[in-house]
Amino acid sequence: MRIVVLAGGIGGARFLRGLKAAAPDADITVIGNTGDDIHLFGLKVCPDLDTVMYTLGGGIHEEQGWGRAGETFAVKDELAAYGVGPEWFGLGDRDFATHIVRTQMTAAGYPLSAVTEALCTRWQPGVRLLPMTDDRVETHVLVDDPEAPQSDGEPARKAVHFQEYWVRLRARVPAHAVVPVGAENAKPAPGVLEAVAAADVVLFPPSNPVVSIGTILAVPGVRTAIAEAGVPVIGLSPIVGDAPVRGMADKVLAAVGVESTASAVARFYGSGLLDGWLVDTTDAAVVDEVEAAGIRCRAVPLMMTDLEATRRMAADALALAEEVRA
Amino acid sequence: MRIVVLAGGIGGARFLRGLKAAAPDADITVIGNTGDDIHLFGLKVCPDLDTVMYTLGGGIHEEQGWGRAGETFAVKDELAAYGVGPEWFGLGDRDFATHIVRTQMTAAGYPLSAVTEALCTRWQPGVRLLPMTDDRVETHVLVDDPEAPQSDGEPARKAVHFQEYWVRLRARVPAHAVVPVGAENAKPAPGVLEAVAAADVVLFPPSNPVVSIGTILAVPGVRTAIAEAGVPVIGLSPIVGDAPVRGMADKVLAAVGVESTASAVARFYGSGLLDGWLVDTTDAAVVDEVEAAGIRCRAVPLMMTDLEATRRMAADALALAEEVRA
Repeated sequence: MRIVVLAGGIGGARFLRGLKAAAPDADITVIGNTGDDIHLFGLKVCPDLDTVMYTLGGGIHEEQGWGRAGETFAVKDELAAYGVGPEWFGLGDRDFATHIVRTQMTAAGYPLSAVTEALCTRWQPGVRLLPMTDDRVETHVLVDDPEAPQSDGEPARKAVHFQEYWVRLRARVPAHAVVPVGAENAKPAPGVLEAVAAADVVLFPPSNPVVSIGTILAVPGVRTAIAEAGVPVIGLSPIVGDAPVRGMADKVLAAVGVESTASAVARFYGSGLLDGWLVDTTDAAVVDEVEAAGIRCRAVPLMMTDLEATRRMAADALALAEEVRA
Repeated sequence: MRIVVLAGGIGGARFLRGLKAAAPDADITVIGNTGDDIHLFGLKVCPDLDTVMYTLGGGIHEEQGWGRAGETFAVKDELAAYGVGPEWFGLGDRDFATHIVRTQMTAAGYPLSAVTEALCTRWQPGVRLLPMTDDRVETHVLVDDPEAPQSDGEPARKAVHFQEYWVRLRARVPAHAVVPVGAENAKPAPGVLEAVAAADVVLFPPSNPVVSIGTILAVPGVRTAIAEAGVPVIGLSPIVGDAPVRGMADKVLAAVGVESTASAVARFYGSGLLDGWLVDTTDAAVVDEVEAAGIRCRAVPLMMTDLEATRRMAADALALAEEVRA
């Protein structure tokens, strides 16, 4: 079975671990979000790709969900001693090595997809990990600027890099729009459209529907390829009981005018794209509403509390795919 | 008093510490060798400049003489886990931060002299540290290539970066020439010629006469500026009793056809450049030979065993300068 998964960071990575357990013989291709990539200290940092790679490769800081286990921070402390920031982005020494290798290969002319493949020869994630694109796409968030003068009483607005909004500002300032800058001119990375075309099923893990999966879908050709692949497209709700399971998905959903409910997220993807949708058992009441929107829906436990629970979620998604296919 | 010092790495840095103690009120400008600069892992590494900066700024690994005190090696270990080398160059985590800052500033368009000044705002070395040039100069060494096929019985030769010769090969293969590649087109960094022109005395510490001081003198205009400054130019022999005090200066002296003696090094610099020369007391027998070559010479203790001994060496050099001037 060939499975294509669109993945953001922590949620996508943990789901993939469950999927590998649920379908150990499957051929899994992961299309990773690169809209949250950022250049820090002159180095190219790809947080979502690395979270998938470290999680599946056994190098992740388990409790934190991102970054490396056993991490130290000598480089970051020294950079701070030089007065070189930003200090709000927590790069550890082990993590720095990944970014140094990536930056060196990028500077030598290798596209991100080739760099990612090279990094994965070490990590052996057990999936084929592709960046959504080799082109530069940067998710920016339009936020109120609390530091700007407000002559007419209206807060001034400014666009900030997604990481600045997410990590530095902790999504605490009002967000008005989310823009994947550069997406309109990006091309899917080599292998992305081919993997979708060859897939038996496409899965949307409980990742952020706007800044993770939404950004991947914003790369021209990807949404159409998935919609027209003629195979079941199954998603899992990142919202349980009107709140995101993890992270601050509600904030960016609000920015694009979508309610933070399991039902609204399904309708945000839309029946033109999504064939099936899993909601948590606590949201069983929305099943009819989702099905009324033309998307087959089931209520199952959606908390990734451990590998077994996550495996069962993945198995439920694959079961729903079979149901859709039948 | 305005003192200009041409400095390599460890020897130059330790001498400078003595000089600061001997002349605490002097205005000291250090012209640092950059011929041993190397790009590693996509980062610009300036070993000699950093050794001076760390030594005078209190961050040096005292016993080792280079690198940072309290160093850790997480980044290097991770790079090795990625299969990314070279492994023979020991960059520590703290040191990496310096190279990351330097590389980022260089990529942003700042010349090395400006970058060095910025790094020194943290380290406060108590001297003005200038790279010899903002242009790229790389010292290459022509060596026997033990790995190449030797069809006619003669060893094949190849040019290697100085660091590869010095650190990886530990100067154990025969060297036939030392070439400061790019020096002929390099311009002295801003401030270098001005500092020489304004100096009251120019000092050559017991640094490597070929690959440290020789490389600085290879930058067009520097040798002439020193020779024509009309102020005492005083050197200290890095050779004591026919062997280098530290390092492998004898190997690179042989490559340029110079004997490893305190007298031969003085004559290598030449009376057109050098006014005075300090040899160690164990080499008192060569004083007449050096003076016969037109260079005033004194025998004094030249072992930098501690700060006081080093301070006395610097004081002896300044005393010889006064004697020359008088």
